[in-house]
Amino acid sequence: MSKKINGSQTVEIRIYGENACLAVFKNRPEDIIQLFLTKEMMKRFPHVTKYCAQNKKAYHIVERSELEKMTKATHHEDICMLIKKAASRPLETYLSMKNEKSLIIALENVANPHNIGAILRNAAHFGADAILVSDKKIAESASSIRTSEGGSEFVEIFETKDFKKSIALLAKNKYQVITTSSHAKSSLYDLVWEKKAVVVFGEEATGLSKDLMQTGTTIKIPGTDNVESLNVSVASAVILSDYYQKVKTNEINPRFK
Amino acid sequence: MSKKINGSQTVEIRIYGENACLAVFKNRPEDIIQLFLTKEMMKRFPHVTKYCAQNKKAYHIVERSELEKMTKATHHEDICMLIKKAASRPLETYLSMKNEKSLIIALENVANPHNIGAILRNAAHFGADAILVSDKKIAESASSIRTSEGGSEFVEIFETKDFKKSIALLAKNKYQVITTSSHAKSSLYDLVWEKKAVVVFGEEATGLSKDLMQTGTTIKIPGTDNVESLNVSVASAVILSDYYQKVKTNEINPRFK
Repeated sequence: MSKKINGSQTVEIRIYGENACLAVFKNRPEDIIQLFLTKEMMKRFPHVTKYCAQNKKAYHIVERSELEKMTKATHHEDICMLIKKAASRPLETYLSMKNEKSLIIALENVANPHNIGAILRNAAHFGADAILVSDKKIAESASSIRTSEGGSEFVEIFETKDFKKSIALLAKNKYQVITTSSHAKSSLYDLVWEKKAVVVFGEEATGLSKDLMQTGTTIKIPGTDNVESLNVSVASAVILSDYYQKVKTNEINPRFK
Repeated sequence: MSKKINGSQTVEIRIYGENACLAVFKNRPEDIIQLFLTKEMMKRFPHVTKYCAQNKKAYHIVERSELEKMTKATHHEDICMLIKKAASRPLETYLSMKNEKSLIIALENVANPHNIGAILRNAAHFGADAILVSDKKIAESASSIRTSEGGSEFVEIFETKDFKKSIALLAKNKYQVITTSSHAKSSLYDLVWEKKAVVVFGEEATGLSKDLMQTGTTIKIPGTDNVESLNVSVASAVILSDYYQKVKTNEINPRFK
């Protein structure tokens, strides 16, 4: 169930998965509208139902089969919530804040909600600020949010209908544009991160569009060449880990003085 | 369809997925027994059917619906092969070779074929030698092999019915034993790899068994702590990338002189 205003903006969404739901409870419990969970789950997290009771939020003890019907998924992990969607803003508004440091993961045509959810989880772990996608609905689907294991609560999601234009806008705002290719000459290990960077990935089978491939610095994740490529969420984690290692944990990096 | 000798050893297996099948064709075409593919696939890879025709191996042009039935999967990617299983040997035999360098990924109770397949893909990319699993059948399932995108052709699979004993055996054979925990004090980035190492992962929800957790060096993959952990295949890639960077690409590493 989801409500819409002016036929466009969904304000309530249904999410499921233990870590996804607990992250919302921890970060913004006031946004919980309704809670559905099994008896077993209630026993494990009595403070969640207690909070709901104290704050006049309806909670329902249900059977697993009901949760399956409600979520249309077998991976509900015994809990489902109807919540207010987190506030969102356009990329342009974010850029107008003129942050000194920022890391964005841009996903051109990546349409698999499990890959996007996995990338949100990686982004949350390694401290990336946002992802940029072609279709926000997929990134905010219950399936993506469940796969993110709570990570979606820590990463902004921007949507663009013109990927090329948005990457150009980021470049204009002094973002280092990084693309990946197994044929690139430059190695991830030699990459010097700028204070602001956007890492651009394409859909796994077809890769990035040609226009974007010719933008910015192209790097490869060194390896044996035994397999053609890495999964997009795996590749994002390896790159994000390099970012975390060189930027987040290394205050003496001369680029950040 | 699979044949068994003495009721125990499967000698023929059915695999599917473009990269998985093409890797077998590239590495050991003589092991192809039968090939099933769509007309579209044949047009893209005429040399595969040509090889089959020349070498008296039956190939069948089939509809997608037939492939779906045959593979019991929608992700067949227009191709399926009946092949001879790669020769396999026990861990003990591998250790008796006394390799100077070796990297093994050990997966205690990891039972999701997609996670195992993803780890095989990562292991192939970053040049790990083998994985050690509790149940070889899952690692060699069509679903795991498809997810490995051909990676399973480059990585040995060892099975153990006693994980603790096998890790002890590896330690006795001078393998550095590495476990991961988000609560560990040591960082992956500070890890000094030995010439031989085994990285041990547990099942995502429960982690490693207590016995194994107390074995060897425990490291964490540094991050924000916003999410509880990384997916096991993602974590394996981040660690394997560190291995590739420090060991495979760095001949002047003093530990390897």
